[in-house]
Amino acid sequence: MTDAKDFSHRLDEAAQRVEVALEGLLEPAPLKGEIARPARLLEAMRYASLGGGKRLRPFLVIESARLFSVTGEAPLRVGCALEMIHCYSLAHDDLPAMDDDDLRRGRPTTHKAFDEATAILAGDGLLTYAFDVLADAPTHRDAQVRAKLVLALARAAGLGGMVGGQALDLEAESAGRPLSQEEILTLQAMKTGALLRFAVDAGAILGQASEAQAQALSRYGAALGAAFQVADDILDAEGDTAALGKRASKDAERGKATLVSLLGLAGAMARRDQLVEEAITALDATGLGAATQLLKNAAVFVAARKS
Amino acid sequence: MTDAKDFSHRLDEAAQRVEVALEGLLEPAPLKGEIARPARLLEAMRYASLGGGKRLRPFLVIESARLFSVTGEAPLRVGCALEMIHCYSLAHDDLPAMDDDDLRRGRPTTHKAFDEATAILAGDGLLTYAFDVLADAPTHRDAQVRAKLVLALARAAGLGGMVGGQALDLEAESAGRPLSQEEILTLQAMKTGALLRFAVDAGAILGQASEAQAQALSRYGAALGAAFQVADDILDAEGDTAALGKRASKDAERGKATLVSLLGLAGAMARRDQLVEEAITALDATGLGAATQLLKNAAVFVAARKS
Repeated sequence: MTDAKDFSHRLDEAAQRVEVALEGLLEPAPLKGEIARPARLLEAMRYASLGGGKRLRPFLVIESARLFSVTGEAPLRVGCALEMIHCYSLAHDDLPAMDDDDLRRGRPTTHKAFDEATAILAGDGLLTYAFDVLADAPTHRDAQVRAKLVLALARAAGLGGMVGGQALDLEAESAGRPLSQEEILTLQAMKTGALLRFAVDAGAILGQASEAQAQALSRYGAALGAAFQVADDILDAEGDTAALGKRASKDAERGKATLVSLLGLAGAMARRDQLVEEAITALDATGLGAATQLLKNAAVFVAARKS
Repeated sequence: MTDAKDFSHRLDEAAQRVEVALEGLLEPAPLKGEIARPARLLEAMRYASLGGGKRLRPFLVIESARLFSVTGEAPLRVGCALEMIHCYSLAHDDLPAMDDDDLRRGRPTTHKAFDEATAILAGDGLLTYAFDVLADAPTHRDAQVRAKLVLALARAAGLGGMVGGQALDLEAESAGRPLSQEEILTLQAMKTGALLRFAVDAGAILGQASEAQAQALSRYGAALGAAFQVADDILDAEGDTAALGKRASKDAERGKATLVSLLGLAGAMARRDQLVEEAITALDATGLGAATQLLKNAAVFVAARKS
């Protein structure tokens, strides 16, 4: 039986493995087919991706692959690729033309530590590298699995997923009218949900799960992603800047519609708890029994986190 | 025997096919796994990629695949993916924080036609979509080929290729000293050469060429890419803004070291002609005989182009 302490231990362990693996991927020596790795760009890519974050997305890849007894380098590399996408999106999102944030994880944002042009290119470099990592042989001996992972990540991260969600978020700020609940849910499913869902979908792809198991895991991922985002709205509404390591209450400052502004704090909390229940029910539907306990705890953690 | 007229006809034909295929890829209906395609973002991605350009890179994919009797949708889709990478790089390169250009192909640049944030996201969306297109089944029935294409494009476009070249270009402007010839050649091989070389490497991958043929084509691609860039430096030095559809003489204005500033105009022209010879010699080494004539003409065209 896995308890909360074991969960936090496993999350930390995954974070450490991801840090070491990202370090290894972002070394100065060029890979076959690369001409050179320019020092300052590499430094900015390392800055944007190393030394921070809970590494929740890679943890979810690693633990959902483990449900199918897939461990080792494959899920770790997929987790790194996913984290590169997450980190590039933060570097671009923080830019003056976007959210214009100076602080991220308690440190200056990438364009503050370097400069805007370098932050744009570091983001582009991390985004591109994610697909390099997925497509390369060490990720899986079967090219079919590698191609599936590339396709799934591209769909989750692109126009119809995360990047599209960012665009909707921009539009919402300049729309001059509050978003409906349905619009907020779509926006959040794209902006945050798609990558979290990819994390568990990747576990199913690596584990060559049955169609029914893959669908159940995907439902878990969708519920977890939605819970994550409500929790974020709640944190932003009640949080303080020191604990978050980034500026708090910025949604309210911008008059941005969130689930808290639509449902109230109590309503948002009720929805969050319901999503956690949905996530747990979906895991039960995988038929994998006690092995899913850690991922159940992950849903509880995501909903209750304080930063 | 293929002559210059046939070459320009085939280039135009490829450009038309690419335009239609890109249109098809950038339709409003979401693909499987996409949640929605936000209208304004899609419009910006279309603006950044449709209705312009010679489509030289897709042409090179299509014609190098044809050397191995591979025609149809596969090389067309790979050409579209490559063109998405090229177009995203232009949208990001034109941003105020980068080259700060208002005009591209005779039209306002993407951030001028939309806004900076949308141009950043449209670039991110095109970059991501390129890998979606490569990894998806219609590109090739063999997943091994698709994974190889993803890996080769990621290496050509990322930290050790195009993005790295952009970063070196930025550094050069703020370095306070002129670059050496070796540094310029590395910068150009990364910034422009890597994608052009990928175009012909992709033909070899799709055609499942022999190792010797693949290497000969790759030498052709490298020489063609270098010739392209010297021609660009020459055009920038002597060109006028109207013919280029973008601001001319901007290298000299910025005091940027180019091969023209290092070798003089005559020296640069001599180097350009030598690179064309190298490209042609490399094609002879493929042993594919008269079938390579069109690609030989492409090298001559690239070197002699006026825009």
